[in-house]
Amino acid sequence: MASKLDLAAPDLARIVAEVAAEVQPHRGEGHVADYIPALARVDGKRFGLAVITVDGETAEAGDAWMPFSIQSISKVFTLTLALQRLGDELWKRVGREPSGSRFNSIVQLEAEHGIPRNPFINAGAIVVTDALMEGRPPMEVVTDIRDNLRRFADNATIDVDKEVASSEAATGFRNYSLANFMRGFDNLKSPVEDTLTAYFHQCSLRITCRQLARAGLFLANGGKDPISGEQIISPEHARRICAVMMTCGHYDASGEFAFQVGLPGKSGVGGGILAVVPGKAAIGVWSPGLNESGTSQVGALALEKLAAKTGWSVF
Amino acid sequence: MASKLDLAAPDLARIVAEVAAEVQPHRGEGHVADYIPALARVDGKRFGLAVITVDGETAEAGDAWMPFSIQSISKVFTLTLALQRLGDELWKRVGREPSGSRFNSIVQLEAEHGIPRNPFINAGAIVVTDALMEGRPPMEVVTDIRDNLRRFADNATIDVDKEVASSEAATGFRNYSLANFMRGFDNLKSPVEDTLTAYFHQCSLRITCRQLARAGLFLANGGKDPISGEQIISPEHARRICAVMMTCGHYDASGEFAFQVGLPGKSGVGGGILAVVPGKAAIGVWSPGLNESGTSQVGALALEKLAAKTGWSVF
Amino acid sequence: MASKLDLAAPDLARIVAEVAAEVQPHRGEGHVADYIPALARVDGKRFGLAVITVDGETAEAGDAWMPFSIQSISKVFTLTLALQRLGDELWKRVGREPSGSRFNSIVQLEAEHGIPRNPFINAGAIVVTDALMEGRPPMEVVTDIRDNLRRFADNATIDVDKEVASSEAATGFRNYSLANFMRGFDNLKSPVEDTLTAYFHQCSLRITCRQLARAGLFLANGGKDPISGEQIISPEHARRICAVMMTCGHYDASGEFAFQVGLPGKSGVGGGILAVVPGKAAIGVWSPGLNESGTSQVGALALEKLAAKTGWSVF
Amino acid sequence: MASKLDLAAPDLARIVAEVAAEVQPHRGEGHVADYIPALARVDGKRFGLAVITVDGETAEAGDAWMPFSIQSISKVFTLTLALQRLGDELWKRVGREPSGSRFNSIVQLEAEHGIPRNPFINAGAIVVTDALMEGRPPMEVVTDIRDNLRRFADNATIDVDKEVASSEAATGFRNYSLANFMRGFDNLKSPVEDTLTAYFHQCSLRITCRQLARAGLFLANGGKDPISGEQIISPEHARRICAVMMTCGHYDASGEFAFQVGLPGKSGVGGGILAVVPGKAAIGVWSPGLNESGTSQVGALALEKLAAKTGWSVF
Repeated sequence: MASKLDLAAPDLARIVAEVAAEVQPHRGEGHVADYIPALARVDGKRFGLAVITVDGETAEAGDAWMPFSIQSISKVFTLTLALQRLGDELWKRVGREPSGSRFNSIVQLEAEHGIPRNPFINAGAIVVTDALMEGRPPMEVVTDIRDNLRRFADNATIDVDKEVASSEAATGFRNYSLANFMRGFDNLKSPVEDTLTAYFHQCSLRITCRQLARAGLFLANGGKDPISGEQIISPEHARRICAVMMTCGHYDASGEFAFQVGLPGKSGVGGGILAVVPGKAAIGVWSPGLNESGTSQVGALALEKLAAKTGWSVF
Repeated sequence: MASKLDLAAPDLARIVAEVAAEVQPHRGEGHVADYIPALARVDGKRFGLAVITVDGETAEAGDAWMPFSIQSISKVFTLTLALQRLGDELWKRVGREPSGSRFNSIVQLEAEHGIPRNPFINAGAIVVTDALMEGRPPMEVVTDIRDNLRRFADNATIDVDKEVASSEAATGFRNYSLANFMRGFDNLKSPVEDTLTAYFHQCSLRITCRQLARAGLFLANGGKDPISGEQIISPEHARRICAVMMTCGHYDASGEFAFQVGLPGKSGVGGGILAVVPGKAAIGVWSPGLNESGTSQVGALALEKLAAKTGWSVF
Repeated sequence: MASKLDLAAPDLARIVAEVAAEVQPHRGEGHVADYIPALARVDGKRFGLAVITVDGETAEAGDAWMPFSIQSISKVFTLTLALQRLGDELWKRVGREPSGSRFNSIVQLEAEHGIPRNPFINAGAIVVTDALMEGRPPMEVVTDIRDNLRRFADNATIDVDKEVASSEAATGFRNYSLANFMRGFDNLKSPVEDTLTAYFHQCSLRITCRQLARAGLFLANGGKDPISGEQIISPEHARRICAVMMTCGHYDASGEFAFQVGLPGKSGVGGGILAVVPGKAAIGVWSPGLNESGTSQVGALALEKLAAKTGWSVF
Repeated sequence: MASKLDLAAPDLARIVAEVAAEVQPHRGEGHVADYIPALARVDGKRFGLAVITVDGETAEAGDAWMPFSIQSISKVFTLTLALQRLGDELWKRVGREPSGSRFNSIVQLEAEHGIPRNPFINAGAIVVTDALMEGRPPMEVVTDIRDNLRRFADNATIDVDKEVASSEAATGFRNYSLANFMRGFDNLKSPVEDTLTAYFHQCSLRITCRQLARAGLFLANGGKDPISGEQIISPEHARRICAVMMTCGHYDASGEFAFQVGLPGKSGVGGGILAVVPGKAAIGVWSPGLNESGTSQVGALALEKLAAKTGWSVF
C-alpha cells in the first residue's frame, strides 16, 4: 500500500535533522516561565522535536525524550474526553471562538455571562475539566485524565509532577478568580476547589515530545489511532478539535501561528507545542523559552521551518 | 496526468447538485441586509453555488450566474494587491489576529493605538485600501481594483454598482468614524474622504458565484492562476492570506466557520462567501439571508454540506 | 448660640413628616434583593427616615427604629477606620475615581493591574478591609469594626446577622473572584478566605435608620462627633470621605444621585442609604426595594424630596 | 444686610494673594497642550486667578486679565443654553454619569449605543452642541453661543480665535470619529461637518480668568446673575449643572478634583478652570501646564489651596 504521505521516510528524517540544526543558534531565546520554581529552573536551551506519521514512521531530534510540563497542551486531551463523553452538549457551556484576549483574561467573561469563548483559554479549560468531574473526587478525575493520556500516548509512565501541581494551586489566584466568577454564573457545577484541583493536576502532567506526538496522532487520523486501531473520537469531532486548535490554540497569538505555521496547534507555558498535520502526522516540539504570547519561541520557529520544508501547511 | 483532486468530475457535479437540493428547504432563512435600499430589495430566496477546481473542472447550481454585491469579500482581493505591492511592510499597519469583536467594533482600536487587528474587519480593510492609494485619486484606485478583479475572475464585465456605492457613502457613519479614528493615530495616509470613496466603491462591485470562485482560484493553487498560468502572488503570501481567512474571515464567528466548514473563507453582507480548498478548488456561494454574525446563513450551510461530502475540510 | 442650621427644629420635623407622607404611595416600588434568603424575606413596603443635626436635633418617620442589613454602607465606616489608622498610604492600594461600572465589575481591575477604582465598589472595599486585617484573625477584625460602629452610633446593640454573613459567604462567588484576582496582583495581603470572612461579616451588620444617621454624624461635622465631642477623624479626611461618597457612592448611578439629591451618600442593597449634609446633619433612610443600580428607590426619592424642601443640596 | 459670605472682603483679597504667592514656585509645572500650534506657543509660566462673590466682591492675582483658550470650559455654557432651551429632553441624548474614561474615549459609546455618558466628555459636548443647532448654519450657532457667553461674562470683547478654530478642525480626527459614530446611532441630527464646526469654534473662544469667573457666577447663585438680576436658568438646573461639574468635570480625574478641591469645576486643555462655590462665589483660574488628566496642574493646586483657606469645599 502506498503511503498516505507526500514524503518518504528518509526525507522526513532529513528534514527533522535540518530543522533541529537550523534552530540550534536560537536555543535559549525567549523567556522561561518563572511563576513557579519548578518551571523556572528548567534549562532554557533545551530543544526537542518528534514527528510521527499516520503510517507509523517517526523522526526525532534533540531532547525529544526529555519530560517537560504539559501545561495547557493538556487542554486538547481533556476536550477530547469531554466531547467523547458529553458530545455537543459541551458547547452550551463553552464557545469556540477566538477571544482576542490573553489566556487568563476575565474581561470577556463579564460581558458574556460566564460562558468562556473557547476551551483553550484558562476559563474554558476550567469549564471543560468541570464537565469531566461528574461528582467524582478530584483526584479520581486526575487519575482518569492521566490514564487516558497514557493510553493516547501508549506509555504507562506519564504522571503528574506533584511539586508543580501544588505550586500551581498555591499561586493560581487568577484561576481561582476565573473559577469563582463562572461559579457565580452557575457555569461551574463542582466546588471551585475540586475543579481547580483537577485542573492544576492535569496541567502538571509530565510528557516528552515523542509521547506528545504519539498522543495527538489520532487527531491527524480522523479520530482513530492508526497504530492501535482504536477510534478514540468521531472523525467529525477530531476535525472540529483541530479547527479549534487552529483558531484558538495560542490565545491572542493564534492568528500569528496560523499565519506562520499553518497547522492546528496547542502550546503550553512549559514550552511544549502539539501540532497536527491532518491526514498525515502529529508533531511534538519543546523548548522552554516563551515569546510574549506564552508560546515556545524556538518551538514555533521549528514548526514554521518544518511546515515550510514539508509543505504540510493546510493552506 | 492524474487529477490532483481526490474527486472525479462527475462526483463533484453530483455533490454540488445534492448540496443545492438539500439546502432548498432552507432558502429564505436569515435576514437580508437592509441598511441600504439596493441591498434590501434583493430576493432572499436566491441561492447560487459554483465550484472550480485547480484542474479547471467546474460545477454549478442555482443562481450561480446572478450578480450580487461583493461587499466584504473584496477585502481578500485588496489584501492580495496590497501584499503584492507592499509586501510584509503592510503588517506594520494592520495585524493578523482574530479580534473577538464585531466587524465594525472600534473598541479594540482605542486600546491598540489605531492598528486594526486584521485586514478583514472594516477598520483593517480601510487601512489596506489606504495602502493602495499611493497618492492617486480615489476613482483611479477603484478602477485599478476593479480591473484586477476582472483579471482574477477572467471576466471583463465586473463593475461597480454606483447606487450601492453612493448609498454606502451616505450611510457609512461607522466607517467614517473608524477612518477618522485611525487618521488620528496617523494610520491613514490619504484624506479620509478619499480612502473611504475607494473603500465604498470596492465593496460595491457586483460579481457572480462563478466569477467569485474563478477569481479566488489562485489562492487554492499557491498563488498561481492554474488556468492562465500567471503567478499572481507568492505561494507564501497565498498560504498566509488563506490563514487569515481561516482565523478572521467571519468577524466574531470565524471560529464557528472553521468549526463547521473547515475551510478558509470570507463572507460579505451581500450574502456571498468565497471559500478556498487549498490545493484543490475555490468555491463561490451566495444566498442573501444573513445569520446574526453577518454571514450568509444558507451559504454557510451549503459549504458545511459540501465540505462534509467532499472531505475537503483542511482538518 | 445660634444654630448652625438654616432650619428651625419644628420645621425639620414637619419636613420629615411631609417627606414620609409624600413617599407613602411609592412604598413597595423597586425590587427587594433576593440573592440570599434573609434579605429576600424583608417586607418591601417598609420605609424609615431619621435625621440628626450637628446641633443634636432629631426627626424621624416610619420604620426608623427597625434594623436592616447595612450591606455596602459599612464601607463608609471601614474607610474611616482605614484612613484613621493608615492615613493616605491607603490610596496606594485603592483609587478614588468613579469607575463608570457596576458594583461588582472586574473589567477595570484587569486593565488597572488589580488596583480598584475606589473604596466603594466591592473590589475596593475588600482591599480596605484587607488593610484593616494587620495579621489579626478575621473575627477579631469583625469585632473591631462592629465595636467602632457601636461607638460611632452610640449604641451597644448593633451586631452581625450571622445568617446573612454565612449566606454571603456561601453565595459570594463574585467577591471570591475579585479577591483572588487582586491577590494575584499582590493587592491583598491576608489570605482571601480571611479577608472575605471579615468583609462578609461587616456587610451583615444590622442597623436602624436612627443609628445610621447618628453613626455618620461626625462626617457632617468635620470629623468630630458633635455630641460626644470626640474627633473621630481629621477634618480633611472627613471632607474627603464625603467627596468620595459624592462621586462614587452609588456605583454607576453616582452621577444620578448627585444630580437628583446633591448630597454625599452611600447606599446598600439592604435598602439603606446614609446621606451627609456637610456642616449640618446626617440622614439615614431605608426602604428595601432597589432601583436597577442597586440603590433604594423610595429611599433615594425621599432624599431628593428632603434635599429640595430643606435646600440642603451642596450645589 | 449682612454678606452671605463667611468671609470679609479684605480676607478674600489676602487669601487670593497668599494663594498666588504659594503657587509661584510651581509655575511652569505640567505640560502645555501642543496638539495645535496656537496652544503650544503659550508661555507655560503664566498664572491668573480671579474670584467674584455673589455680593459682587472681587479679588484677583497674576495674569487674571490675560485671555486664553476656553476649550472644554465652554461645555458648561453650552449645557446651560441647551437646558434653558430644551429642558430635560436633553437627557434623552446624553447621560449624567461619570464615564471612568478619558475625555475622548469611544469605548463606552459602542456599548451604550451612541449615548455619551455625560455632557462634559467630548462626545457628550458634541451632542449638546448638536442640540443647539436647530437647523441653523453653524456660524450662526457660534455667534449665538459667543453672544451668550458675552452676556454671562458681561463683556462684549469675547471672541473666537479663528486660528485655533481652524487648527482644531484640521487635527480633530478623534472628534470627527466620535461625531460620525453617534451619527450612525442617529444621536446627531445635523450634518457632522456642521455640528463640529460649531463645536470647534465654541472651544476656540478666548476668555480671561476674570471674565470666566463672572460668566459662571449665576451657577453659584441659583441660576440668577446676582449683578444683572437676570434669572439665566432655573435654580434646579443650576444645581444640577453643578452636580455634573462635580462628578464629571475633569474626565477620569473628576474624583481626584472632588477629593482635593471639593468644588464643582470644569477644566479645559487651554489651562483654565472654572470653579463654583454654591451660594458664595465663582472662580476662574488659569495656568497652561496640564497634569496627565488634562487639567491645569498649577490651577488645580491654586484651587485646592483657596478651598482650604476659605473653607469653601462643599464637603
